[in-house]
Amino acid sequence: MTDLLWPGDHRAGQIFSDAAYLAAMVRVETAWLSVLVDAGIAPASARADLTAALSEADVEAVAVAAEATGNPVPGMLELLRERTGGEPARWLHRGLTSQDVVDTALLLCLREALDRIRSELGTQVHTLATLAETHRDDPMLARTLTQPALPTTVGMKIAHWLTGILDGADCVAALPEPPVQAGGAAGTMAAATELSGSPAGAITLSGRLAAVLGLADSPPWHTTRSVITRTGDALVTCCDAWAHIANDVAASSRPEIGELAEGRGGGSSTMPHKNNPVLSILIRRTASVAPSLAAILHAASAAGIDERSDGGWHAEWAALRTLARRALAAAAQTTELLTGLVIDTERAAANLAAAGDLIAEQRTMAELTGGTPRSDYTGAAADLIDAALQRARHTMEAT
Amino acid sequence: MTDLLWPGDHRAGQIFSDAAYLAAMVRVETAWLSVLVDAGIAPASARADLTAALSEADVEAVAVAAEATGNPVPGMLELLRERTGGEPARWLHRGLTSQDVVDTALLLCLREALDRIRSELGTQVHTLATLAETHRDDPMLARTLTQPALPTTVGMKIAHWLTGILDGADCVAALPEPPVQAGGAAGTMAAATELSGSPAGAITLSGRLAAVLGLADSPPWHTTRSVITRTGDALVTCCDAWAHIANDVAASSRPEIGELAEGRGGGSSTMPHKNNPVLSILIRRTASVAPSLAAILHAASAAGIDERSDGGWHAEWAALRTLARRALAAAAQTTELLTGLVIDTERAAANLAAAGDLIAEQRTMAELTGGTPRSDYTGAAADLIDAALQRARHTMEAT
Amino acid sequence: MTDLLWPGDHRAGQIFSDAAYLAAMVRVETAWLSVLVDAGIAPASARADLTAALSEADVEAVAVAAEATGNPVPGMLELLRERTGGEPARWLHRGLTSQDVVDTALLLCLREALDRIRSELGTQVHTLATLAETHRDDPMLARTLTQPALPTTVGMKIAHWLTGILDGADCVAALPEPPVQAGGAAGTMAAATELSGSPAGAITLSGRLAAVLGLADSPPWHTTRSVITRTGDALVTCCDAWAHIANDVAASSRPEIGELAEGRGGGSSTMPHKNNPVLSILIRRTASVAPSLAAILHAASAAGIDERSDGGWHAEWAALRTLARRALAAAAQTTELLTGLVIDTERAAANLAAAGDLIAEQRTMAELTGGTPRSDYTGAAADLIDAALQRARHTMEAT
Amino acid sequence: MTDLLWPGDHRAGQIFSDAAYLAAMVRVETAWLSVLVDAGIAPASARADLTAALSEADVEAVAVAAEATGNPVPGMLELLRERTGGEPARWLHRGLTSQDVVDTALLLCLREALDRIRSELGTQVHTLATLAETHRDDPMLARTLTQPALPTTVGMKIAHWLTGILDGADCVAALPEPPVQAGGAAGTMAAATELSGSPAGAITLSGRLAAVLGLADSPPWHTTRSVITRTGDALVTCCDAWAHIANDVAASSRPEIGELAEGRGGGSSTMPHKNNPVLSILIRRTASVAPSLAAILHAASAAGIDERSDGGWHAEWAALRTLARRALAAAAQTTELLTGLVIDTERAAANLAAAGDLIAEQRTMAELTGGTPRSDYTGAAADLIDAALQRARHTMEAT
Repeated sequence: MTDLLWPGDHRAGQIFSDAAYLAAMVRVETAWLSVLVDAGIAPASARADLTAALSEADVEAVAVAAEATGNPVPGMLELLRERTGGEPARWLHRGLTSQDVVDTALLLCLREALDRIRSELGTQVHTLATLAETHRDDPMLARTLTQPALPTTVGMKIAHWLTGILDGADCVAALPEPPVQAGGAAGTMAAATELSGSPAGAITLSGRLAAVLGLADSPPWHTTRSVITRTGDALVTCCDAWAHIANDVAASSRPEIGELAEGRGGGSSTMPHKNNPVLSILIRRTASVAPSLAAILHAASAAGIDERSDGGWHAEWAALRTLARRALAAAAQTTELLTGLVIDTERAAANLAAAGDLIAEQRTMAELTGGTPRSDYTGAAADLIDAALQRARHTMEAT
Repeated sequence: MTDLLWPGDHRAGQIFSDAAYLAAMVRVETAWLSVLVDAGIAPASARADLTAALSEADVEAVAVAAEATGNPVPGMLELLRERTGGEPARWLHRGLTSQDVVDTALLLCLREALDRIRSELGTQVHTLATLAETHRDDPMLARTLTQPALPTTVGMKIAHWLTGILDGADCVAALPEPPVQAGGAAGTMAAATELSGSPAGAITLSGRLAAVLGLADSPPWHTTRSVITRTGDALVTCCDAWAHIANDVAASSRPEIGELAEGRGGGSSTMPHKNNPVLSILIRRTASVAPSLAAILHAASAAGIDERSDGGWHAEWAALRTLARRALAAAAQTTELLTGLVIDTERAAANLAAAGDLIAEQRTMAELTGGTPRSDYTGAAADLIDAALQRARHTMEAT
Repeated sequence: MTDLLWPGDHRAGQIFSDAAYLAAMVRVETAWLSVLVDAGIAPASARADLTAALSEADVEAVAVAAEATGNPVPGMLELLRERTGGEPARWLHRGLTSQDVVDTALLLCLREALDRIRSELGTQVHTLATLAETHRDDPMLARTLTQPALPTTVGMKIAHWLTGILDGADCVAALPEPPVQAGGAAGTMAAATELSGSPAGAITLSGRLAAVLGLADSPPWHTTRSVITRTGDALVTCCDAWAHIANDVAASSRPEIGELAEGRGGGSSTMPHKNNPVLSILIRRTASVAPSLAAILHAASAAGIDERSDGGWHAEWAALRTLARRALAAAAQTTELLTGLVIDTERAAANLAAAGDLIAEQRTMAELTGGTPRSDYTGAAADLIDAALQRARHTMEAT
Repeated sequence: MTDLLWPGDHRAGQIFSDAAYLAAMVRVETAWLSVLVDAGIAPASARADLTAALSEADVEAVAVAAEATGNPVPGMLELLRERTGGEPARWLHRGLTSQDVVDTALLLCLREALDRIRSELGTQVHTLATLAETHRDDPMLARTLTQPALPTTVGMKIAHWLTGILDGADCVAALPEPPVQAGGAAGTMAAATELSGSPAGAITLSGRLAAVLGLADSPPWHTTRSVITRTGDALVTCCDAWAHIANDVAASSRPEIGELAEGRGGGSSTMPHKNNPVLSILIRRTASVAPSLAAILHAASAAGIDERSDGGWHAEWAALRTLARRALAAAAQTTELLTGLVIDTERAAANLAAAGDLIAEQRTMAELTGGTPRSDYTGAAADLIDAALQRARHTMEAT
């Protein structure tokens, strides 16, 4: 899978590619067949590993066929039945509805993306904690509304970045386990009840499907889509945190400021002197589109109607995929940015010195209390860094 | 506060009105003065209840003055100092920065909105649980992609609505306690350190401010804004759930379908026969704008830079206020919609009967298993209703 | 009208305030009465200037009443009938529907906002043209991806800003004349046909209403909302252009760069050295929310259904008002920013010099052609400035 | 190119696919070489048709390489130079910058999409005009806020759809000709000035590139992006109009209403009775995401800074491609929907009759004027249909 118009997309690899998604759908059908056999509903001869029955070469046919019914499942089933035959073809998909397969496959792909993002967040927390420790006392100019404000430390700035990442990681960690979807045509498990002989039997089948796929068991959620929107919101929260870092690096790598630089800057074919903060730019790009993608997921959820939505459901799939891949690529780019970050502490100190007298406020405070201004102008920065580091340790231990 | 262009806005009352926000800012300054006095930093004569010093009549002057610095705090301080004089005027705001006051006041207003929304959600859960129980066995047509699908029950539809509300309530319940903001000009607590004599003293002042205001203590979060975005995301998740209900009511109240109706429909000045599902329409309206408002909050957060952002921060305030008021009005409208909901179970049964033979799937399943189709066509609906009711009970007990 | 949470909002004055909107609705009803009388349909005694019948004091009552029907017209009519009595009360609103009044009043307010924005754009074009001329040859560093690229001129940068403003002005100029809305309850002009005795008579009434209000005549557009979305799109295009200028000023006013500064920077209560680019920051803020507001208008338009939409219509009003006021305030702020802009041409030249050898590309070109590098490194900048100035002259002459 | 998660995507064919985009970039470089040779700057031996030098097989390598510099041009140039060698390799890209190639190639692909969309719009106008004519007098129930309002005609409803399409077509027709981009590294045409010997020479080269590619000549627009945003806005305006039709069809195809149906409904693997309005659902889906995509383009434009933006530019590419393909697929689906639309005029008449007494308003009007209610209750519908048809004829003649 490539995206020529989204540099860095290859970092997301095959996750959520059309081929990967097709394979995930086939995996759901395979798992369901095994659940039916294990429950004694289908004969043993209906068990089949369908994994090899479809391949990337089938993606186009399934994609084209998807328009007739509005989703890719019927087209996929037709191919699977053709190629499998016999009892597996007879029992394939019995008790499920298209939405069960589409949704469960989405979550299988999403889980893979989230696992990778969690791992990147872990590395980022570790890297930032080390950087904050290293630069704990390096003086730096705090800027507000673009202008010089007060002295701070490099470590304090990094601790703020770290806090943003920890907030994002908290949101990801708080996501519910990805749930299975196995509600049948109207979300009542009617067909599964018919097959298993009882409502309790149907519910058990859903639970077994979840277990086989490593998902959480769940009542049907065909028209209650918060699992999708919450994931989108958590991913955007991470993108926000990554952008904060990228914004600081991009602004600060202007040579007139020169405090931060990417380890590996981007060059230019015609201007050999260029050292562009390309990773920062690409991360900023991602953060500028992510809120709109998450908003699409909410608008889709808010369009919930009947027992299967008339457009809202269909709007989710591509937006979720795009957001997951964008976020994953940005996660990896941020990790690389942080591990290669060049901090010019001399420039930082020089810019602070050049900013002139910044302690008018301190003098005012000293006058008020009748004391003399402290010589350490960075206030509680060291303690605040410690607080962030402690939170980072908790997060690292928890994962 | 009125909004002629947002019917129902009055349901949000004065929450987050300009006057309420000004009062909240004054409350923060009053609390900080008391913290300074209690800590022995400012003299006892600096203590003052500033609440009465400013009123709604001052809103316009403060609002106009806000442009010069980009925020309303300096204009408010000037008025307060003029009207208070003496030690309170001398100590006012010492150790704080404008962003501390703006942010803390935002959260005071937001907390009030969230309290009201939590209360509405509680009523909704209760009402829906009762409705689901009442209509547990009433037959209804499940529709997918607008078309007849299979039999279901009215209780099952309501249980899905309930699940959506419970998801929204979970998101609201998972929000972190609203934190105080008291970082000083550069987020380093430098001035408070100067005043209190030590970093630990500064951190203690922040904690005491939180305690006085009933907020959570927190390190400064000037440029890490997930507390704002998470609140926005939770509110949108609630709006999504309310819209699902409103969508079903609006579609189903078409007289050709006629299964659901609002207890109090809206009339028309020229068409006496009209019985418009006005609440549903207004709730749908809210849900169609809420995702964009939450996206604004994320875009603002993603614009974080330096130690105070150059526009991102300023974009948050109005969007947060608007989203909170919109959500609160929709919450109240949904409660009214649900408590007055008219369910025509006869029409529901008649529409199901008119849909003709819907059990082809059941027959297929029966053929596969060699059995006969069950006479109960609603599958596991009753069990799924029970699961939702149980979750509702847990939520009601927890609050 | 104030908005404490949107510094600069007062620049939009009363345009689109609740009171102004109520007055606009009354103006529509007054005009319609006069049209009915002039056409000989209503008796002369039905003519009435209703302007004084309602005032700002009535806003709250009308706003609260609006929820019952979902729009403010019925509540307004009730007050008008109460206070007017007699023939005017009897003939009031006859032939119109609520949407006619809501939509026509929206466009009356919008026209006022657009007139003001057009005027600001004209001033901006004039100011930028002068600035581009003045700084035509002042050397400056062109930066790409935040890094030094090649030499350019201050005039060239300003010419790009100018081009953006001209593009925005073109979009505003291309907007259709604001149309009247007078379709009656179902958009068929049925009641007006009844009143006037013929379809042609009804269409004439609509045309006369347009003439009285200075709007364009139009067939009913109850569910075809491109007039709203196109206006939103044009306003956002202007905001984009203003933000480009504000972005450059904000970045360039960092003291380490120091090429651009606002004439009147914003101060800080505690940091006397601050000179914040407040206008730029507030303009950037506006541009970060405007795309979401315009997206709300499109989502509302796309929700068109039946002969009056079930929520889409209602979502437009507040978003349109907010976007218009935000854009107008940003327009005025940009004009002030430009007229007061301080350009430090010495710093610009110094930063260019400090960037070192930037003409590797020129040398490569010279090698290719066997010539020697030109001493003028700014390429076609002067000619491109001329092209922009010429376009500016055309625009200024056309308005 | 396939998109398994966007059923119907295949209707956009190869337009804007990665392979098509790579080919468009190669086409720009080929054209530029020919311009340099024709101008006598490069030797005749530098002329080369590079079209065959790269193929779809190279997409992945170019895509992966794009991250290092943030755009795909340098990677493409490296491959082209390797495979071409000699004078073409030596002269390749001389005088251009990456953004020139990226932007010009975007517009080449976009033009192709717009041509197809214009053609679909033309067919839609023709089809709708015919339908409006055919059903000019067929009675139908006008509905407002989901409830019965007044009588109207099927032709009137279709005339409203037609008006929306004409508005969209107007927006597309008003788009400026797609401009060429050839500004060089800093938008000053410095390298081209060096190559050609004069600024006028450089400007001439840009004009010749435009002519070779069939684009409009233009000054550089590296940081003035209204050409992109205006296109996005026009496409969304079309999506809005298509959604209005799809909304009506989806709601009206509910069997309880049954007035409209798709010619080819979508089936279900398990429910043989289903006849889902799949095209309508997929069109609604598109319209629900399009506003967010256009908002991304505006946010990107508003991030303009320096002489090439630090993330805003990069955010545009994929959003523009996605929006263009989504819009094109929806255009084709709407054409199919309209050409196959089944209108059940008997059901329409029956639903109108069942709505009961709808002419209270007419009677009130008749009382006011002292006349008797007209027997034709559809007001000016016929005249309004004629007005729409006339506008359609003008549009059809103009294209």
